[in-house]
Amino acid sequence: MKTNHIKIRESKANHVELPVVMTIAGSDSSGGAGIEADLKTFSAFGVYGMTCITALTAQNTKGVKTFEKTSSNLLSQILLANFEDFYDNEGPLKVIKTGMLTKEAILELTKYELNGIKFVIDPVMISTSGSTLIDTEGIQHCINYLIPKSYLVTPNFVEAKTIYSLLGGEVPVINTIQDFKSFVISLQNLLKCENLLVKGGHIPFDNNDRESSTGERIIDILYQPSGEVTVFESKFIKSENTHGTGCSLSSAIAANLAKNKDLVESVGISIDYIHKGMLQMSKLGHGNGPLNHNVQPVNYLHELVEYENGDLMKFDTEHTFLNYLINHPSVKDNWKKYTQHPFVQQVANNTLPFDKFLYYLKQDYHYLIIYARMHGLSASKAETYQQTHSQATIISEIVQEIENHKRKLKAYDVDYDKDIDELKPGKACIEYCDYLISCGMKEDYLGIKTALAPCLHGYAEAGVYGLNLFKANPKSEDSESKKVYKSWLDEYTSDWYQQANIEGTKALNSLVDELPKKRVEELVRIFNDVTLLEINFWSEVLELDN
Amino acid sequence: MKTNHIKIRESKANHVELPVVMTIAGSDSSGGAGIEADLKTFSAFGVYGMTCITALTAQNTKGVKTFEKTSSNLLSQILLANFEDFYDNEGPLKVIKTGMLTKEAILELTKYELNGIKFVIDPVMISTSGSTLIDTEGIQHCINYLIPKSYLVTPNFVEAKTIYSLLGGEVPVINTIQDFKSFVISLQNLLKCENLLVKGGHIPFDNNDRESSTGERIIDILYQPSGEVTVFESKFIKSENTHGTGCSLSSAIAANLAKNKDLVESVGISIDYIHKGMLQMSKLGHGNGPLNHNVQPVNYLHELVEYENGDLMKFDTEHTFLNYLINHPSVKDNWKKYTQHPFVQQVANNTLPFDKFLYYLKQDYHYLIIYARMHGLSASKAETYQQTHSQATIISEIVQEIENHKRKLKAYDVDYDKDIDELKPGKACIEYCDYLISCGMKEDYLGIKTALAPCLHGYAEAGVYGLNLFKANPKSEDSESKKVYKSWLDEYTSDWYQQANIEGTKALNSLVDELPKKRVEELVRIFNDVTLLEINFWSEVLELDN
Repeated sequence: MKTNHIKIRESKANHVELPVVMTIAGSDSSGGAGIEADLKTFSAFGVYGMTCITALTAQNTKGVKTFEKTSSNLLSQILLANFEDFYDNEGPLKVIKTGMLTKEAILELTKYELNGIKFVIDPVMISTSGSTLIDTEGIQHCINYLIPKSYLVTPNFVEAKTIYSLLGGEVPVINTIQDFKSFVISLQNLLKCENLLVKGGHIPFDNNDRESSTGERIIDILYQPSGEVTVFESKFIKSENTHGTGCSLSSAIAANLAKNKDLVESVGISIDYIHKGMLQMSKLGHGNGPLNHNVQPVNYLHELVEYENGDLMKFDTEHTFLNYLINHPSVKDNWKKYTQHPFVQQVANNTLPFDKFLYYLKQDYHYLIIYARMHGLSASKAETYQQTHSQATIISEIVQEIENHKRKLKAYDVDYDKDIDELKPGKACIEYCDYLISCGMKEDYLGIKTALAPCLHGYAEAGVYGLNLFKANPKSEDSESKKVYKSWLDEYTSDWYQQANIEGTKALNSLVDELPKKRVEELVRIFNDVTLLEINFWSEVLELDN
Repeated sequence: MKTNHIKIRESKANHVELPVVMTIAGSDSSGGAGIEADLKTFSAFGVYGMTCITALTAQNTKGVKTFEKTSSNLLSQILLANFEDFYDNEGPLKVIKTGMLTKEAILELTKYELNGIKFVIDPVMISTSGSTLIDTEGIQHCINYLIPKSYLVTPNFVEAKTIYSLLGGEVPVINTIQDFKSFVISLQNLLKCENLLVKGGHIPFDNNDRESSTGERIIDILYQPSGEVTVFESKFIKSENTHGTGCSLSSAIAANLAKNKDLVESVGISIDYIHKGMLQMSKLGHGNGPLNHNVQPVNYLHELVEYENGDLMKFDTEHTFLNYLINHPSVKDNWKKYTQHPFVQQVANNTLPFDKFLYYLKQDYHYLIIYARMHGLSASKAETYQQTHSQATIISEIVQEIENHKRKLKAYDVDYDKDIDELKPGKACIEYCDYLISCGMKEDYLGIKTALAPCLHGYAEAGVYGLNLFKANPKSEDSESKKVYKSWLDEYTSDWYQQANIEGTKALNSLVDELPKKRVEELVRIFNDVTLLEINFWSEVLELDN
């Protein structure tokens, strides 16, 4: 008998912390809604999902055939099991999302004081296929006991009207977006929930802001207690893939909140996720089909938003993007610590132990290889072929730098091609490279270019700073290391490097005339993170033993 | 009151077909096992999950507190709902995976004739935390009614022994891997299931193939009816993240089968997925914690396997990789159709309508931009910085080619920078580019280089073929188009292009001394796919109206 032997390679270990979200909702056997949709959504956003199933439904895309509620006893045991193992005031459970509830589930849940947990309540009443999923008494319990504890309530327009009526309000006629906004604010005043999102999929608006069945503008309105209203506008999607869109939107918001995204960002990213899921799916089933929960969500709201003028920040040749980054209050001191790092001072003053310099060169060799590869990635994400070309040119320059390192180290009997084990990357190098690789995965061209900028520009500045120090101290003793250090300073103050710096500055600035302020904040964060990683890279060298 | 208006950009529509898998199992409220783990696993592999919940458990990482079985009536309604909407003999439901079963669930399930659906039976009996999940009567039902219909049964060693005893066998002592193999074959003979995988996590082996509690070799054995035995060997993982590993392995296999992967490939990819999930997770809960279901699985088994010598294919300067690809039986005819395409003939004979040639140039302009970006991606995935550098050099050459196109088109009043709308990519171009981009996402350096190879080498051959045709027909009428066609043929027969072809051939061949046969098959498939896309690219031009 033939025997194949397949030996599987070992994987790397890695401590990934997943934020935890629990969904309390019904099970939809067909997988498009309920806890099934919630878990799929949690996976798409990379959070860990737990469940408390309030009822089992036998359903498909055409409707709910029957359902059985979970007993109070079992609900109580489920909540106990989940809380005692996954909740201790600080986590890891961060958000609870509720969908189809029963009176029993609400009563069991309200027995717990759950400090620090955000509740996202989706007041599900009727399924997309038209089945009633909770009775009036249940809704009343939800309003009385659960909503006052909640962080966010997410009814659709029909559910919002029902709740409004139950609370004794008379539902106003909604003719305009302004009317819709007023209605959302009044509902929040009655409900006293912390934040309220009313989904407007049932009432499209036309280009004159008027409600119209043929309108193509879908308006979702978020009202926050600070007094802010956010109107999310998106285009009406003609799609049959609508089963479970409501559940999935709320669970996407819950997942983003668990990842510490702010509420506006969470809602925007989630609306887009649902849209993509509806659009990027072949129909399944014979009724309203499910969406594709496996689509890739965006990382930031700015990636999908058309910003208004007031939200934009402008840059020009007087106020360049790079200058803004370097002089930003959160960056400025770090930039100085980096470009005037004690490592550079010790090189310039020839007080750096030569072993440490060799260690640094080896680390930098590793780093530059990743740095070159990152420019390949930016080449692949460039918006024009000229940009692609410029990244290719930079790769050639980096290779030049790598070859210089190699030659220098060879003079000290370090042979890259032979002593590869001797050249293991250290912690600071690995952290820096991992950060760049992670940026490369999720960032666009501008994001990657921003992450790569501190290296190019910082070395140009540090080189000049160091060479000036060196020149101010002409009488220091001659030595082998002094020659090497001088040649290192010469490299980064050389014409070719300074010219690359000028070209790089121009190229980065030319990418940006105006940017959403939110996006600028993120880019500042990236630039600052990388500046800190550069500091760390040199500090590690100085802190070496021996 | 401040109102923010956020307008969300429209997403692209796309018909993604998801294979469907149903899990019939219990619910684990803590999310680490049961249908929760199954759904998370299905998401990781991009398949659509449905559920039939056989029991609700209140459990966490420390144990099962209590559980309630689902009633026969509800089970029957759930299966009816799922089958009537998602199963019609041909799909979309392709695989059913079972976990914790009840007698009732087995009886309801066996009422259906389910042709074309593969059953993956994980005969769960005891949870990782030690709770009994099915009684002997239930196991007996599973053996009598379900396993005979199954495609694959996946017991762990303890479950395998229990089943063996129930079937009247006397469990042999397992001292060696050979004993284990014999045991698996005997069990299959008793069970009569189509394929059997016994997971050996409970009995590690040492380097002398002997069972040993301190052994570090974990052996999972797959026995296939064809008489093949596959031994999967992996390294013992010391980890507390073991809750739900059994469920998740079976659902990973089910997901891969639904994606039409073969059984050996499915099992190998799944074992690796579980390992990564255990290793790349910070502990959750106070008992044996769950794994991280969000880790990225590999696409192919070859990515994680240490192949034995006999499974390798060797290449050298006599038998080069590129020659093997071009002359492969599945490629050879297509390669000729491509490099001697009627488009090239019509160019060479000056019978191609000039409008069509202009259309082609515009399409090629689009294509080349993506082609350049793809080389950026390969630069980022290169294994050495010299490779990264060579990709950068190719980008520069492609940019040269793009600029040439641009200049040529300008002579015919097509201005790229102005008439961008005129230059919309056609169907053939979009398909080709999408294919390359998708390769770029999932392939390694060699895979991408293989996908990019037909363009470089095919044009070099087509150019020579065309120029020879042209020269054989010296008396054809002179015309403007003839000049243009000649210059096009000249470009691809020019020294610089032919030199690039030679360099590219060397570079590709130098990547490959030996490769697993499986991997060679995949690369042949990629090379052939791209060759067909090249044919299509030119055929579209000829099939244009007017």
